Amino acid sequence: MSSAAPAPAPEEQPPRPVRFGIMGCASIARKLARAMLLAAPAAAVAAVGSRSEAKARLFAADNGLPADTRLHGSYEALLDDPAVDAVYLPLPTSLHVQWATAAAARGKHVLLEKPTALCAADLDAILAACDASGVQFMDSTMWMHHPRTAKMRDLLLADVGDVRLINSLFSFRANEDFLQNDIRVKPDLDALGALGDAGWYCIRAILWAVDYELPKNVIALPDPVKNQAGVLIACGATLYWADGKMATFHCSFLTNLTMDLTVVGTDGTLHVTDFVIPYEEKSGPFSVASKSNFAELHTGWAPQPSKHVVMTDLPQEALMVKEFCRLVQGIRDAGAKPENKWPAITRKTQVVMDAVKASIDNGFKSVDVAS
Amino acid sequence: MSSAAPAPAPEEQPPRPVRFGIMGCASIARKLARAMLLAAPAAAVAAVGSRSEAKARLFAADNGLPADTRLHGSYEALLDDPAVDAVYLPLPTSLHVQWATAAAARGKHVLLEKPTALCAADLDAILAACDASGVQFMDSTMWMHHPRTAKMRDLLLADVGDVRLINSLFSFRANEDFLQNDIRVKPDLDALGALGDAGWYCIRAILWAVDYELPKNVIALPDPVKNQAGVLIACGATLYWADGKMATFHCSFLTNLTMDLTVVGTDGTLHVTDFVIPYEEKSGPFSVASKSNFAELHTGWAPQPSKHVVMTDLPQEALMVKEFCRLVQGIRDAGAKPENKWPAITRKTQVVMDAVKASIDNGFKSVDVAS
Repeated sequence: MSSAAPAPAPEEQPPRPVRFGIMGCASIARKLARAMLLAAPAAAVAAVGSRSEAKARLFAADNGLPADTRLHGSYEALLDDPAVDAVYLPLPTSLHVQWATAAAARGKHVLLEKPTALCAADLDAILAACDASGVQFMDSTMWMHHPRTAKMRDLLLADVGDVRLINSLFSFRANEDFLQNDIRVKPDLDALGALGDAGWYCIRAILWAVDYELPKNVIALPDPVKNQAGVLIACGATLYWADGKMATFHCSFLTNLTMDLTVVGTDGTLHVTDFVIPYEEKSGPFSVASKSNFAELHTGWAPQPSKHVVMTDLPQEALMVKEFCRLVQGIRDAGAKPENKWPAITRKTQVVMDAVKASIDNGFKSVDVAS
Repeated sequence: MSSAAPAPAPEEQPPRPVRFGIMGCASIARKLARAMLLAAPAAAVAAVGSRSEAKARLFAADNGLPADTRLHGSYEALLDDPAVDAVYLPLPTSLHVQWATAAAARGKHVLLEKPTALCAADLDAILAACDASGVQFMDSTMWMHHPRTAKMRDLLLADVGDVRLINSLFSFRANEDFLQNDIRVKPDLDALGALGDAGWYCIRAILWAVDYELPKNVIALPDPVKNQAGVLIACGATLYWADGKMATFHCSFLTNLTMDLTVVGTDGTLHVTDFVIPYEEKSGPFSVASKSNFAELHTGWAPQPSKHVVMTDLPQEALMVKEFCRLVQGIRDAGAKPENKWPAITRKTQVVMDAVKASIDNGFKSVDVAS
């Protein structure tokens, strides 16, 4: 029975940064390097690994990384670096299964560029490796982390009612150099082509709109465009759920930059036309119509849709990095378990993509979506 | 060789109004009666015909028609009225072929509510009757006449490049009374249901976007919704052109009011979300993105889409009436021939609708579009 006063609480320490190793110097890695710097102090760039140390050095210099960033001339060396907590992995898709499993096996948390794998079986190998090592997995689908996305969810729930129809488009007009030389048109690198690069976002957006309920079947749209090597350059599909709701998407490397998500429900309609990358970095616009009616004599609408703009100080990719760091810090510093929500969403996206690819490959027949 | 000065030109007379007979007191006729009053002096409401004179009288009183409006207790009597130049015909679709051909046979010009007929063969009978009598035919697709539509055409040509993908949605949430009792859910009245009432606009918008080039084939989306009588309540289709461009549409009586037209081309993207009936009567908004690119590091778009608003003093339906009157006056007063552009556009719309219906009826197989 001591009468001493309780010991003072230890001073609250800010969590140590998550030390990232950037694994490959792809152009998208420049955006993520900036995001990691913006996400300080939660994140820090500890190392860059490339196939040559010179490339890693150039990348670090070009992207304003700290002078003490560790430079590795191989991916293996990066993975062996004990100063690295987590890897960001933007390698070509065909290399994901090899390197993401290797990273997980060495205890590195994995932030994986999309498309996450060539097929769900490969993704499952990655997720199993992460699971076995107790590391966090997250795919790099940035728009999920914009506060607009949470606001749109709120209004979907409040105003749109039962979702019945979703349409999503993502295209950009690739130039000749891209269409000849980019990894995304090469069967040995990103064999899923536009489906993996652009369709990924459409499928994710559609799943997001139905709170990740898997469709029961998909039917690819006939007449996709393929390049001479057989890689998809433009394609689309319709998705069907057991309760009759449906979705359509289309993705392409051949048409003007377009990023539409339209969700039509019994009570309302959501429109966003820049869902992947907002027009401006600090604001995200969208509109929601709710219980729209014809005005008297059909002379207009009553009420009209509401316009919304959600501001953010940090760009969505920095918010993504912060969220990933929060989870990693919980595991690394507090014994938490990896968050299962993110790998589960990734897997559903991949499973639907597999079904779309299978429908394209089997002559646009209906393909059941595996669960 | 007279030396007299040339006779003075006869004083320019304003053309006499086109004297309309409104044939049936459907709710949409109220909107057209107002449009005719707004389109004065080009238009005048001369007569109303209904199945009873009492209904015609009530309609005239309710809609502020002139005291000398002639009231007829049968459609036949209206068609026999020599004071009527032209009929506006909003009867149920199943009655169109009978009454539009009868009107044409009596020398009346025909402004026909959409959908124009249950099938292209019926429409052809109507068009042949108009042709034989030398009267003008036009369908009542009002948005075609909004100045926004012409402005969108200009920007489509200037900024969108080669059109590759079109998506159109038109739905409204019908109430229980509509779903039980409206003519648009009755197999003997408007057997095309949502396809005829809402899909008509989507098909027209898609054809408009490709300057009325017919698709080579259509494939209906599986799982349309039908009511117990087999009338379509929600459905959709994809349309394919020989050069690889494609379009998707969806129409429904079951979801929130939505009127989207999205046109994606090689160089630009057009978005309009109130194409059938603008949010406000005097203004028509839309946006066009042209040569959209990712900003540096994909932090936004450069350039961003341009927003446009096209103002109009007269509502689109009054502009439609004025255009119809201009053509009728040319025929009636100056010996001009009927303008073939409008019936040709109508026929293409009907032909595509026939193909969609055939695809639904044959188990969602591809159906070639008749030319």
